Amino acid sequence: MKWQQLENGGGGTHLVVLDPDEEPVQVLTDFARTHGIHGAQVTAVGAFADAVVGWFDREARDYRPIPVRQQCEVLSLMGDIAEGENGPVPHLHAVLGMADGRTRGGHLLRARVWPTLEVVIQSVEPPLAKVYHPDIGLALIAPGRREPAP
Amino acid sequence: MKWQQLENGGGGTHLVVLDPDEEPVQVLTDFARTHGIHGAQVTAVGAFADAVVGWFDREARDYRPIPVRQQCEVLSLMGDIAEGENGPVPHLHAVLGMADGRTRGGHLLRARVWPTLEVVIQSVEPPLAKVYHPDIGLALIAPGRREPAP
Amino acid sequence: MKWQQLENGGGGTHLVVLDPDEEPVQVLTDFARTHGIHGAQVTAVGAFADAVVGWFDREARDYRPIPVRQQCEVLSLMGDIAEGENGPVPHLHAVLGMADGRTRGGHLLRARVWPTLEVVIQSVEPPLAKVYHPDIGLALIAPGRREPAP
Repeated sequence: MKWQQLENGGGGTHLVVLDPDEEPVQVLTDFARTHGIHGAQVTAVGAFADAVVGWFDREARDYRPIPVRQQCEVLSLMGDIAEGENGPVPHLHAVLGMADGRTRGGHLLRARVWPTLEVVIQSVEPPLAKVYHPDIGLALIAPGRREPAP
Repeated sequence: MKWQQLENGGGGTHLVVLDPDEEPVQVLTDFARTHGIHGAQVTAVGAFADAVVGWFDREARDYRPIPVRQQCEVLSLMGDIAEGENGPVPHLHAVLGMADGRTRGGHLLRARVWPTLEVVIQSVEPPLAKVYHPDIGLALIAPGRREPAP
Repeated sequence: MKWQQLENGGGGTHLVVLDPDEEPVQVLTDFARTHGIHGAQVTAVGAFADAVVGWFDREARDYRPIPVRQQCEVLSLMGDIAEGENGPVPHLHAVLGMADGRTRGGHLLRARVWPTLEVVIQSVEPPLAKVYHPDIGLALIAPGRREPAP
């Protein structure tokens, strides 16, 4: 287990509200670049016209896409923004509510907003740095301090 | 996409713990009025004796009610408080866990707490303002700033 | 309904990233003890190799265990840390995503992390105190202030 202390950054907290047909992963990536957000905690509610979520396939070392081809409530969207190799990247997990109350979810690969997505971005400092793990196939957040084994 | 910068308001952060049989949408509406909360981020965990969640029906321009007639864990309750036409209103999405581990969820219309619901309300400033969209049938949060198209 | 005002404590916000095979309930209990966290809000995303969640059985006055015997995305992990009889204890609710996009969830009893769990702990003050209710079979957070009936 590794950890680090965080301060709320100068950027503070941003509320971002997406319009119909906007794609949240791209919009939040662009927003983080434009506003210099290098580490943040992200939460959101709203609704999607449709979405593709993912489950991480350990053998394939990649996300297996799961299409959700129906209008759904975004019951929770939770994750973070951290510094990858080419700038800030969001890491978001979604729980989606269907018309009959059943839920589906996964790692958010892409989605189409309808009618709104209300996103709160709480910036933190220092920046959250990601390190790529070739054995896993993922870049993981790597805090600076490690707790000694008990 | 529209956005605004937020400061933690003078009201700061409130922990609200509901008692058995209390109805969370009404209790949180009343709490926001009493304590002058005009914008906030809300998260909660706990359990319900029963609940009614909703899925937004685009044709009907209203939420279709989905009754959950059993005791369930509140796995996540997430959303915000914003200023509507008649004062502050909570907008909450719930994921509920059944006795066999299956989940159901939607926009929280109403619920009955049992035995507890632990709610954290993080006030923000400036107030979050809602604007009614007659074409959609919903009041949506309308931040003051709009990002130029890329 | 009871409530209390919270200030962000001197401990501020911690990011804790768990390694493969670590057990989050124990790791977070140990972390709270080591770092003097007596009240906090907790959120996390990541993935588990497997987990056991619980649904509270009112008759038995205890959690009924629900094993999840497969690798799953942690779509949301939400809850708090509060002072129990023997020190700080986490109270966490999980929504887990399966390989086909279906979800399961409950009160987190135990889990095995793979490959990562990214946890944000926002400390609050004053400490959150729990009081055991023998009639229910649970210790519940008991804030100091009670709202008068409307």
